[in-house]
Amino acid sequence: MKIAVVAPSNMLKGEAAERVGAIVDGRGDCELAIHPQCFLSDGHFAGSDEDRLSALREVMADSSVDAVWFARGGYGSNRIAEAAARDLPDAARSKLFMGYSDTGFLLAAFRKAGLEVAHGPMPQDVLRDGGDAAVNRALDWLVRRDPAALEPHLEQPAMAFNLTVLSTLLGTPLEPDFTGIELLIEEVGEHLYRIDRLMFHVTSSSKVRKVARIRPGRASDVPGNDPEFGSDERAIVADWCGRAGIELGRPADIGHDSGNKVVPFGRFPE
Amino acid sequence: MKIAVVAPSNMLKGEAAERVGAIVDGRGDCELAIHPQCFLSDGHFAGSDEDRLSALREVMADSSVDAVWFARGGYGSNRIAEAAARDLPDAARSKLFMGYSDTGFLLAAFRKAGLEVAHGPMPQDVLRDGGDAAVNRALDWLVRRDPAALEPHLEQPAMAFNLTVLSTLLGTPLEPDFTGIELLIEEVGEHLYRIDRLMFHVTSSSKVRKVARIRPGRASDVPGNDPEFGSDERAIVADWCGRAGIELGRPADIGHDSGNKVVPFGRFPE
Repeated sequence: MKIAVVAPSNMLKGEAAERVGAIVDGRGDCELAIHPQCFLSDGHFAGSDEDRLSALREVMADSSVDAVWFARGGYGSNRIAEAAARDLPDAARSKLFMGYSDTGFLLAAFRKAGLEVAHGPMPQDVLRDGGDAAVNRALDWLVRRDPAALEPHLEQPAMAFNLTVLSTLLGTPLEPDFTGIELLIEEVGEHLYRIDRLMFHVTSSSKVRKVARIRPGRASDVPGNDPEFGSDERAIVADWCGRAGIELGRPADIGHDSGNKVVPFGRFPE
Repeated sequence: MKIAVVAPSNMLKGEAAERVGAIVDGRGDCELAIHPQCFLSDGHFAGSDEDRLSALREVMADSSVDAVWFARGGYGSNRIAEAAARDLPDAARSKLFMGYSDTGFLLAAFRKAGLEVAHGPMPQDVLRDGGDAAVNRALDWLVRRDPAALEPHLEQPAMAFNLTVLSTLLGTPLEPDFTGIELLIEEVGEHLYRIDRLMFHVTSSSKVRKVARIRPGRASDVPGNDPEFGSDERAIVADWCGRAGIELGRPADIGHDSGNKVVPFGRFPE
């Protein structure tokens, strides 16, 4: 079982790579191939668009690689997602691709292209409090599809997205078909007024209105609102779902934290 | 000439109302009716959605009102824009509506509904450095359609939006027809990586790709990027226009500052 790590957004920290390497060595059930591109730096990004796309396409086409694990989020995978999903090599079709946050742009594009993708923890998450558990959970899914890694209340084929990422992929060539899916959302570092604006945008989309339901994950590191917004993130999601006629599902166990669970796209666990 | 002021987003400051009142008194060419709703407060907003919608609908239906001037931006006009543009009273069709920033949601919805709208300075702008000039420019357009108030290089029927507002109205019922228009954009207080993500979103829209060209206004108060982004806002706009096959027009003289010029939607000044 060989897992390739590439960084389609920002640079992976060396410390994270070392700690994840040690976890993998301790487990002994997989081999980790951290692509050197993960440590490139070009302005905001882990190398130029060409560097990041080329590393991603390389591991997609490598038949010795069983899974592609995105190193971390940040910003930038949208800049290469359309090209990454074009003219897919056959070898890409037998792999699982996993990440979350900014890499949701790739999850969307790859899901749309028929690849197996999952929302789940990434290598850089090892640096969070409790990060070892997050990394082991991700590996449990990558290596043996352990149901214990899953978000515990998936009732329907699902997708999971960072709310900002979801908002900015609507109407683009990356937008997947949301019909009948359970849509899990999470957010980090956004003011409540921004969450409200994003929920307005997302729930006003006729495409998003085809979902079975929306389930709110965690919104973490929400900066203070001045003045007080007058509501909280759960009430905001409920309000916009109500206005749009979208069913509000139970809270989702996902977020920018080490408790973040795995959500395989479009798959309904038995 | 009677100009009604309502606040569809955040509360107007009393000091701004006083200073604009004094400017209007000094000019003697118009009467200003600042609706008491401008000073309501309900959490983030200038009163509840019902309060803000009701005040707006009241002045829209008032045949003694010649123009409706939005008091300021902030956040919240999207929450009432669809309802505000529904079942329009006849009296609304002979008025001009003006604002920018968050009130762009209303400009879009009203333009789509066939009303006369313009991007331009708002009463709260009087508190900026040079704010008197901004307010006089707005009044020059509201009262006598003075061409000197206009963005000086409009070559085609135009629209102007804050970039975040534009991104979050795409795909909603507020989205106007962009075919053949010159699209002026401006931004405030957003990191370069966010401007890049917004430009990805906006220029990936098949609807936006129908514009004649995009013209970048000012991006002000851009917080520092860590690490350095590697590009600036002008280069970002040029990059995404290039990728999308959208013509890049000359810089636009609009922004969150007292130099902000008037852009009448869909009108081509002779």
